[in-house]
Amino acid sequence: MTGTVSEDVAAEFGADFAPHTAQIETFGPIGRVLLLCEHASNHIPAEWGDLGLSQAERLAHIAWDPGALALARALAARLQAGLIHAGVSRLVYDLNRPPHHPGAMPEQSEIYHIPGNQNLSPKARLARVAGVYLPFHAAAHSQIARRMALGLRPVLITIHSFTPVYHGAPRAVEFGVIHDADARLATAIVKHAPANLNTQLNEPYAAKDGVTHMLKMQAGPYGLANAMLEIRNDLIADAAGVAAMADLLAPCLQAALAELEVE
Amino acid sequence: MTGTVSEDVAAEFGADFAPHTAQIETFGPIGRVLLLCEHASNHIPAEWGDLGLSQAERLAHIAWDPGALALARALAARLQAGLIHAGVSRLVYDLNRPPHHPGAMPEQSEIYHIPGNQNLSPKARLARVAGVYLPFHAAAHSQIARRMALGLRPVLITIHSFTPVYHGAPRAVEFGVIHDADARLATAIVKHAPANLNTQLNEPYAAKDGVTHMLKMQAGPYGLANAMLEIRNDLIADAAGVAAMADLLAPCLQAALAELEVE
Repeated sequence: MTGTVSEDVAAEFGADFAPHTAQIETFGPIGRVLLLCEHASNHIPAEWGDLGLSQAERLAHIAWDPGALALARALAARLQAGLIHAGVSRLVYDLNRPPHHPGAMPEQSEIYHIPGNQNLSPKARLARVAGVYLPFHAAAHSQIARRMALGLRPVLITIHSFTPVYHGAPRAVEFGVIHDADARLATAIVKHAPANLNTQLNEPYAAKDGVTHMLKMQAGPYGLANAMLEIRNDLIADAAGVAAMADLLAPCLQAALAELEVE
Repeated sequence: MTGTVSEDVAAEFGADFAPHTAQIETFGPIGRVLLLCEHASNHIPAEWGDLGLSQAERLAHIAWDPGALALARALAARLQAGLIHAGVSRLVYDLNRPPHHPGAMPEQSEIYHIPGNQNLSPKARLARVAGVYLPFHAAAHSQIARRMALGLRPVLITIHSFTPVYHGAPRAVEFGVIHDADARLATAIVKHAPANLNTQLNEPYAAKDGVTHMLKMQAGPYGLANAMLEIRNDLIADAAGVAAMADLLAPCLQAALAELEVE
């Protein structure tokens, strides 16, 4: 059998199959910084129904990172950065997990059972990889490669939010900065973090928990500076909170980036 | 400005712009092994004219790896592997180089000056990245991610050929096996190499020469076993040579893969 990628997709999943393209927004002229927001949306496209979840469950933090997209946009505007965000809930496919990982199409998330993700067939798994995971990575790679072709040295920052209470336990950390193999940018961000935010390196998660997949895939091979930001979602629950947080974090990120420039 | 990747491409390069999709061939049921042949073709699509080269120059090893695609197909058939090969000459874009590398769109290759690659504008560089580099990487990532979603553990092997005389000096090595950070597969292949082939690890090139970009991008982040094979092109210059080489190398690769299985 010989065929192009698109012919394979049509043969496998039917002529109606359409990948869910990642959304790309640019703020100002193309520059070094690219923000990624993998858990931007709680949208479940029609082909996946409601995954057997109640409306309340589909609005909960298991479906997305509440506030993350609004914060990412506010930061992108202040930093004149590019932004790529997902349009599909992580319950369909968690873009920050590789295709073989149980958490990519989770049967369980925190205390929630996900009926529509139980015992997925190989074909159902492939359709989610082809329809959600691959388009997002292609968009990220495209934006990174374009910057490199222009002689810019891209910097990758992923924007996430976390729930204040997890498995019943409250979390004190407000701003987490997480790195994969290359700690340069994360260390610089923590150094310049706002004094009035409880800031922690590699909290509430760390690379050992498998949360740095996007950094590993998109920044690692090119040796690009990168970091993952985690903001407690009660601090960015409304427009005022988002604006205040962006005003705090933008100068911190700018100072950290300036420090990398002079290395 | 907000837009999808495809809208950006149309806006940047015109409505007629069409990426040069990598060709995917499968031999038998989907399995672990994926072969990549980045320098399979000396074809220069119409939009790039003849790059200012004579026909003889466009047929020379600087434009492609002669024999590599035929060998890759013969190996894929024997190993029941998948194969992805490029349809565009490396003089337009060398898929085994990152977008910022001078060798990606070389102004000079060995002793040859490439008129059509002198002083490329940013837009011309972006069009080659979007039209040649990104589609090949997207195809490779797609085939790898699909295997992972199916619970297979992919193995990546790139197939290249090299010229017997380079800058006037003859090369004794016949079969080179090159690795990036992970030496497992390359070491096993050398161990099982045919006794009648002059086989060398990390010859005639090595990772320090920048030749492992594809391995670094596509195998590195997932931790997949990988190797780059270099065959001296005078040994695979006709169908009989290709078949003989495939008959020698297929059992060697199978033995090396079997050794990795039991690790």
